[in-house]
Amino acid sequence: MPRSLDVHLLPALVDPAEMAGGTVVVIDVLRASTTIVQALASGAECVVACLEVEQARATAAELPTESVRLGGERHCLRIEGFDFGNSPADYTPEAVGGKTVVFTTTNGTRALLAAREAARVLVAAFINCSATAEAMRDADHVHLLCAGTEGNISREDVLFAGCLAERLIEQDHSIDWEWNDSAELALSAWREADRANLAAELRNSRGGRNLVRNQLESDLARAAAIDALPLVAHFDAREGRITSP
Amino acid sequence: MPRSLDVHLLPALVDPAEMAGGTVVVIDVLRASTTIVQALASGAECVVACLEVEQARATAAELPTESVRLGGERHCLRIEGFDFGNSPADYTPEAVGGKTVVFTTTNGTRALLAAREAARVLVAAFINCSATAEAMRDADHVHLLCAGTEGNISREDVLFAGCLAERLIEQDHSIDWEWNDSAELALSAWREADRANLAAELRNSRGGRNLVRNQLESDLARAAAIDALPLVAHFDAREGRITSP
Repeated sequence: MPRSLDVHLLPALVDPAEMAGGTVVVIDVLRASTTIVQALASGAECVVACLEVEQARATAAELPTESVRLGGERHCLRIEGFDFGNSPADYTPEAVGGKTVVFTTTNGTRALLAAREAARVLVAAFINCSATAEAMRDADHVHLLCAGTEGNISREDVLFAGCLAERLIEQDHSIDWEWNDSAELALSAWREADRANLAAELRNSRGGRNLVRNQLESDLARAAAIDALPLVAHFDAREGRITSP
Repeated sequence: MPRSLDVHLLPALVDPAEMAGGTVVVIDVLRASTTIVQALASGAECVVACLEVEQARATAAELPTESVRLGGERHCLRIEGFDFGNSPADYTPEAVGGKTVVFTTTNGTRALLAAREAARVLVAAFINCSATAEAMRDADHVHLLCAGTEGNISREDVLFAGCLAERLIEQDHSIDWEWNDSAELALSAWREADRANLAAELRNSRGGRNLVRNQLESDLARAAAIDALPLVAHFDAREGRITSP
């Protein structure tokens, strides 16, 4: 039996039921996936994903003040009263070590919710590419789910989908993969990318241009640091929590 | 002022109002665009695009029997009682010369209707690439609208969007184009394609596999015949008619 590897360029382009029982990788390179992985690498207990700002505030209010930090963005910027925005650089061990991070971003959180029927949901970006690929050696039905930006396809997510797809195909040549047309598009995009200047490639994308406009260009280098963090991030849909086992 | 070149990988991914006033190229390589261009090249007076089968029958019934031919498909196959299916090979000068072709296909017709607010709508495929690019020399706001297959992105349409985008960019280097992330994806897909074996590339796509399953593989060679027909196909949204001036 061949295994299947489907890329979905936006959450709206896949029926959640189609991913039931499969392994889904949620991709929001700029910046939710990168930041979540960074927070866990810095020792956060877990990241709780919330769709709405008020839901994030209410969730945080139920926990002891000292054990919780609020993070996330709207339109790229830190939310009023929150401890951090969505810059990976904010999530240092001093800031989040041992804490529960209650986190809300629009695109990334929507993509996580779309994956709710999957058997396993991972959160990944360039920063933990190899660790994620390694954790998926046994996955039969793989879905790489790009978050996009406000309902639009964004190239930075597609580039990483291509990068991870290439890694999956190459790490075990004995596997016979079948992939969909969007996976082929993602593989082409990644083969054409200037890998030696990945931060520049990310700058030239919908998400990258948004960051430059908001003086957040320094986040691009962090997002482009391939394999800087050898960590696997698991999302538990029932609990709404992301942890690193 | 730079000109804009936006690719939309599916009709559902763009608001028709966003294309108002612009030039839209409707792309359904396998096979509606290819077949419509072939019908006009074979001397059809015009092609009338209908969304529903019954609407096509009713439209044809209003015209003198001798001047009209019914064509189109559902699930790749000729519709009961229609003169032709959706194979470009059916639309010979003997079959359609001087006739009105009333035509219905699911994906291609939906894409035409999505373009209804544009100032100018062209129908194109590999078969009339250069003629279409030439006709767009003065276009300021270009939208390349891929029809897809039953709501799914299909690579054959994206490949042609990349081909036409490359042609537009290269035919006049004095123009400063701005393009969206999906245009960048289409350009990468086209740069990676095996242009010398385009029929094989088309076979390896969602639309191509559908044709092979339905014993319609011979249509692939026709769809891959770049610039075989030097013809521009215009869609008049008010009249619902496609003609070649």
